[in-house]
Amino acid sequence: MAGNSFGQLFRITTFGESHGGAVGCVIDGCPPGISITEAEIQKELDRRKPGQSKITTPRKEADTIKILSGYFEGKTTGTPILLIAYNADVKSEDYLELKEAYRPSHADFTYEAKYGFRDWRGSGRASARETLARVAAGAIAQKYLKEKLGIEILSYIDQVGDIKAAVDFETVTPEAIESNIIRCPDQAAAEKMIALVEKVKSEGDSVGGVIQGVIRNVPPGLGEPVFDKLSADLGKGMLSINAVKGFEIGSGFAGVSGRGSEHNDPLEVRDGKIRTTKNDAGGTYGGISSGETIHFRVAFKPVSTIAKEQDTVTRDKRPTKLSAAGRHDPCVLPRAVPIVDAMSALVVMDHHLRHKAQNG
Amino acid sequence: MAGNSFGQLFRITTFGESHGGAVGCVIDGCPPGISITEAEIQKELDRRKPGQSKITTPRKEADTIKILSGYFEGKTTGTPILLIAYNADVKSEDYLELKEAYRPSHADFTYEAKYGFRDWRGSGRASARETLARVAAGAIAQKYLKEKLGIEILSYIDQVGDIKAAVDFETVTPEAIESNIIRCPDQAAAEKMIALVEKVKSEGDSVGGVIQGVIRNVPPGLGEPVFDKLSADLGKGMLSINAVKGFEIGSGFAGVSGRGSEHNDPLEVRDGKIRTTKNDAGGTYGGISSGETIHFRVAFKPVSTIAKEQDTVTRDKRPTKLSAAGRHDPCVLPRAVPIVDAMSALVVMDHHLRHKAQNG
Amino acid sequence: MAGNSFGQLFRITTFGESHGGAVGCVIDGCPPGISITEAEIQKELDRRKPGQSKITTPRKEADTIKILSGYFEGKTTGTPILLIAYNADVKSEDYLELKEAYRPSHADFTYEAKYGFRDWRGSGRASARETLARVAAGAIAQKYLKEKLGIEILSYIDQVGDIKAAVDFETVTPEAIESNIIRCPDQAAAEKMIALVEKVKSEGDSVGGVIQGVIRNVPPGLGEPVFDKLSADLGKGMLSINAVKGFEIGSGFAGVSGRGSEHNDPLEVRDGKIRTTKNDAGGTYGGISSGETIHFRVAFKPVSTIAKEQDTVTRDKRPTKLSAAGRHDPCVLPRAVPIVDAMSALVVMDHHLRHKAQNG
Amino acid sequence: MAGNSFGQLFRITTFGESHGGAVGCVIDGCPPGISITEAEIQKELDRRKPGQSKITTPRKEADTIKILSGYFEGKTTGTPILLIAYNADVKSEDYLELKEAYRPSHADFTYEAKYGFRDWRGSGRASARETLARVAAGAIAQKYLKEKLGIEILSYIDQVGDIKAAVDFETVTPEAIESNIIRCPDQAAAEKMIALVEKVKSEGDSVGGVIQGVIRNVPPGLGEPVFDKLSADLGKGMLSINAVKGFEIGSGFAGVSGRGSEHNDPLEVRDGKIRTTKNDAGGTYGGISSGETIHFRVAFKPVSTIAKEQDTVTRDKRPTKLSAAGRHDPCVLPRAVPIVDAMSALVVMDHHLRHKAQNG
Repeated sequence: MAGNSFGQLFRITTFGESHGGAVGCVIDGCPPGISITEAEIQKELDRRKPGQSKITTPRKEADTIKILSGYFEGKTTGTPILLIAYNADVKSEDYLELKEAYRPSHADFTYEAKYGFRDWRGSGRASARETLARVAAGAIAQKYLKEKLGIEILSYIDQVGDIKAAVDFETVTPEAIESNIIRCPDQAAAEKMIALVEKVKSEGDSVGGVIQGVIRNVPPGLGEPVFDKLSADLGKGMLSINAVKGFEIGSGFAGVSGRGSEHNDPLEVRDGKIRTTKNDAGGTYGGISSGETIHFRVAFKPVSTIAKEQDTVTRDKRPTKLSAAGRHDPCVLPRAVPIVDAMSALVVMDHHLRHKAQNG
Repeated sequence: MAGNSFGQLFRITTFGESHGGAVGCVIDGCPPGISITEAEIQKELDRRKPGQSKITTPRKEADTIKILSGYFEGKTTGTPILLIAYNADVKSEDYLELKEAYRPSHADFTYEAKYGFRDWRGSGRASARETLARVAAGAIAQKYLKEKLGIEILSYIDQVGDIKAAVDFETVTPEAIESNIIRCPDQAAAEKMIALVEKVKSEGDSVGGVIQGVIRNVPPGLGEPVFDKLSADLGKGMLSINAVKGFEIGSGFAGVSGRGSEHNDPLEVRDGKIRTTKNDAGGTYGGISSGETIHFRVAFKPVSTIAKEQDTVTRDKRPTKLSAAGRHDPCVLPRAVPIVDAMSALVVMDHHLRHKAQNG
Repeated sequence: MAGNSFGQLFRITTFGESHGGAVGCVIDGCPPGISITEAEIQKELDRRKPGQSKITTPRKEADTIKILSGYFEGKTTGTPILLIAYNADVKSEDYLELKEAYRPSHADFTYEAKYGFRDWRGSGRASARETLARVAAGAIAQKYLKEKLGIEILSYIDQVGDIKAAVDFETVTPEAIESNIIRCPDQAAAEKMIALVEKVKSEGDSVGGVIQGVIRNVPPGLGEPVFDKLSADLGKGMLSINAVKGFEIGSGFAGVSGRGSEHNDPLEVRDGKIRTTKNDAGGTYGGISSGETIHFRVAFKPVSTIAKEQDTVTRDKRPTKLSAAGRHDPCVLPRAVPIVDAMSALVVMDHHLRHKAQNG
Repeated sequence: MAGNSFGQLFRITTFGESHGGAVGCVIDGCPPGISITEAEIQKELDRRKPGQSKITTPRKEADTIKILSGYFEGKTTGTPILLIAYNADVKSEDYLELKEAYRPSHADFTYEAKYGFRDWRGSGRASARETLARVAAGAIAQKYLKEKLGIEILSYIDQVGDIKAAVDFETVTPEAIESNIIRCPDQAAAEKMIALVEKVKSEGDSVGGVIQGVIRNVPPGLGEPVFDKLSADLGKGMLSINAVKGFEIGSGFAGVSGRGSEHNDPLEVRDGKIRTTKNDAGGTYGGISSGETIHFRVAFKPVSTIAKEQDTVTRDKRPTKLSAAGRHDPCVLPRAVPIVDAMSALVVMDHHLRHKAQNG
């Protein structure tokens, strides 16, 4: 209940700071018999790892995942799975400045307010390094959902700064997403986005953006009224990712302006199935999946770690200035795409198991 | 785990359909010794009830709340509190048309997909009537938060259709919010909004909007990294309300366009306390409260129940047409304000107790 | 998390004091489509109700159960079920003595230590009246388990005071259990037990005993290692019943004296199935059901409410004497039989759903 | 919800099989600021480890504990703590016999029934090696409870086979318990017990017994009615330990024979506090701690792994015979003492935090 677990039945508990012994997670409730390899998990992690392109941080991190339990002869056993990535040794001295000064818009001040003291090396538990555990667990869920249920999960960059992409979420492919380093399938927009990120990087600054999430082939009936709506759990999952400040599903904020008669999705029979003629709802009604594609958007603020000098204060309330010495991401979005995918997979997997329990 | 509970330590479990015996909730984990009366709870419920003004549905509903347990000599006892409102008798025949036809953008189809059959009288469990239980429980939480911690919770209409209000969330008062029937403290905008809702009503249609939520005086340190961030739990709470399609905190979607150097909130010492000079984060860093005002926006789609005729299908897959016979809200936002307040209160109360447990 | 819920997936949350408005529970997670009537639930409650025979308290209580939600056209709908029994009006004055004095071996003192004050009318939340909610919920679970899975749940009196019954738990029938007022299928022992209870009653005293629980036809594979073993959850369920001081499964305390070579249950193939030649384990290995009959024993202390005068103290620490004025059970065991059945049903139902989720 | 977590607020999730990469646990909800070292934890583990005396298995196991997260400068940080012990490499070939044959009274058959297949090296997840994670987590809880609240937790051997000890649980010391290899403070009984275990060992057999648990100085008010009674949670914790078949608190099974007038614990004022003159209840009333010493007994069956040849069957239903080749404990009780201590600590710690949340 201290907030480090996600999911009810496919339940992950993550652990680890950026500069302790390791980061990782335990998955409890994973069905037995899923064929998965460390290499398959690593593939997803490599989409998240630093240093993958000229627009991500060149920082080196040991992101090698190990499966240490709940696994036998290439398959999950149904018992808890420990996924772990060891941290490289670091010199705490590199962080001495942060021992006293709070970085603006970081969790330094709030963690100290909460716990009374904090691990001041890097960002401690608030480090985005924690998300590698989510990506690793999500890779197992994605494998199951794809193979057992044909569910396809993907996401891509929809906006960076003011540059917006034009993409049809119904038809976009994983290949198109991976075709450039910013993971935006609109190639013209992608080029502008990359140029913007490089400019921002050269200025020692950062920029935000929006990721579009897509989940296809979810069968009708997933989601638990009234609080654990599929839409509400997706929202919570996305809002728990570092730097996320907004979530909208279907028509979202833009949809508030229209009329009900325009916004409602008419029902029809298509190919012998009950379908909607459009999908402004985003794939759920009453929080339960309709069988249509689930689509949503996630807003990421510009990351707070920047090279530019900023005003701040120390623990003992003296004004000071800080500028990030290390090498940081000017834009987290390309690396956040697999995290959004992972959170989608964790939410859908959990609701699939919950549905099986009560209605299966 | 079937989704009808909210909160970990101040935990409500709601029950009831629009046309069964009763709706209500059990609160488990309420601290003992809170002085509260049925009348105080009723006051919040009356802000949610139908028929309160010319722009809400004239439908009559029995919204009288009773406290049937966990209560002695005017105070909570620490044991489970049953809050219940009995439903008026209704004639099921009024709903016979819905027995066969699915209303567009309603949960009729998805509930049936989920459970195999459904209570077709009204909206069953997906009815917004369920939210009265949240408002009732939220009233108890608000009382505690206000009296013990000085925390102030309020919300107001920020947008209806395309009409936007201009309000300073830091200074707006509950009186200003209640000064007109649409609960928008910008009087000029309020008049336009009311006119729009009346127009939409006369057309047999509906319109959406945005509610701004505000929580003041939350002490620094509330929120549980990494999944149960205060921001993520607020998001989930709001996204679990009927008709909500989006949530953003602080700068939200608009904030993605700027640069980190602009977006970061500089720290300073003010009145002897560590404060930020601005609050684009919306009151949390790393998902933990900073002591600054928490502010967020919630997008409501136009409600799906409209008098206009719409295309749809029946359970046995025949095309048909439906138009709502009953009297419905052309815009749910005025009645949703106390629901947003309640969800804010439930989230903050729960995190307050969680903080006390681990760090108190 | 305040302790009033039981079960993870078939989850009941009970509410109510002996002298407030009502007692009952909400069931969240009940599968849809179970045919059940209030009369069927009432039948189980009538086995628990006061005044059913000369050896139970003649006290009158309104034990009439109502289903107020989650129910439509004679079937569960999959949404939360509210089961409620209203309390009769009582005169608080009858309990004024208890306002000041703590009853020995009651929860009066500990509740006040916990919550700072207490509802002194009757036993408040610690009243055995709370268990009627368990019996009502258990009746629904029993119906499902019997009809869908052929699982049979029963229990009977194995010991009262020093009088022990001789019964074969493998073959005993519900009819044999109900054939006398003490619910002991060994008729000779039953007569002695009844005589003992009458004697104890005439002395204004009380007596304890042991209930044997039996669960037949549980399929192999239920139970979750390592903490939520079927045996551990049964133990917790039984130990949560008022007056219970001990639980043992299979050979239990007696089994500690033997040797492993004697205690181990040899495996064989019988009727084409893997079976054990004996069942000292009590129906689980490693906490997971083996397919053999689950059998366990539950120890009930003599109830603490007695007519005999006892030494005690008041809230303000003055010595005083108390003797129960009301009419109380000299032996709770006959009325506890349906409670043991209910807890068995709740545990097995919950584990059935959990098994379906992960392995179904 | 798959059963590998224990506790609500001080929550451990254990992982690991006897022959995978590692065993250990994540603690979520540990208060920040507890001073603890790996050496202090190791000390408790060394009481559990194999090979510690002539009456335990001489098997060598790597039981070295590492803290890999949630820990900084010698103190807990409030974030998740990973405790891990790596497994030594083993040759799977040593276990080939177990690939096909089910060991009697082991979880081999039930795990396979549950999950469809199993890790047949050793006992997989059902191995008692899992309990080292509990002991490690319990050591942290014990440290906190002792230093912050003065709570003292201990346990000792009360019975082995038919040999019973005579010990005053109110006054026994940790030193007396550790004064002999079987951990029984009655020296005369201890000698007989040791002789019995040696005899049983020489016969290739095993023997069971009873551990007495003691928890002193628990303040009044811990425990959550109605399901999460302190007594019920202790019962569940103990019944979740391998080989445990029974739990009784206070007078337990013996107490059923007496009369209420004898069994009730009279209240008095002693040293200015409300106390009981005796403690047949075992330290709780209504499941809430009274301030008196909590005392309970835990029954362990003779371990099922024995050198003697036994009848069993194979996965493909052929009769066969098995005898344990490895070196096993003839009596697990001496090594189970720290496990009982750990489960006591985990239960009390969790209830302490829960009490703080609601009433603190």
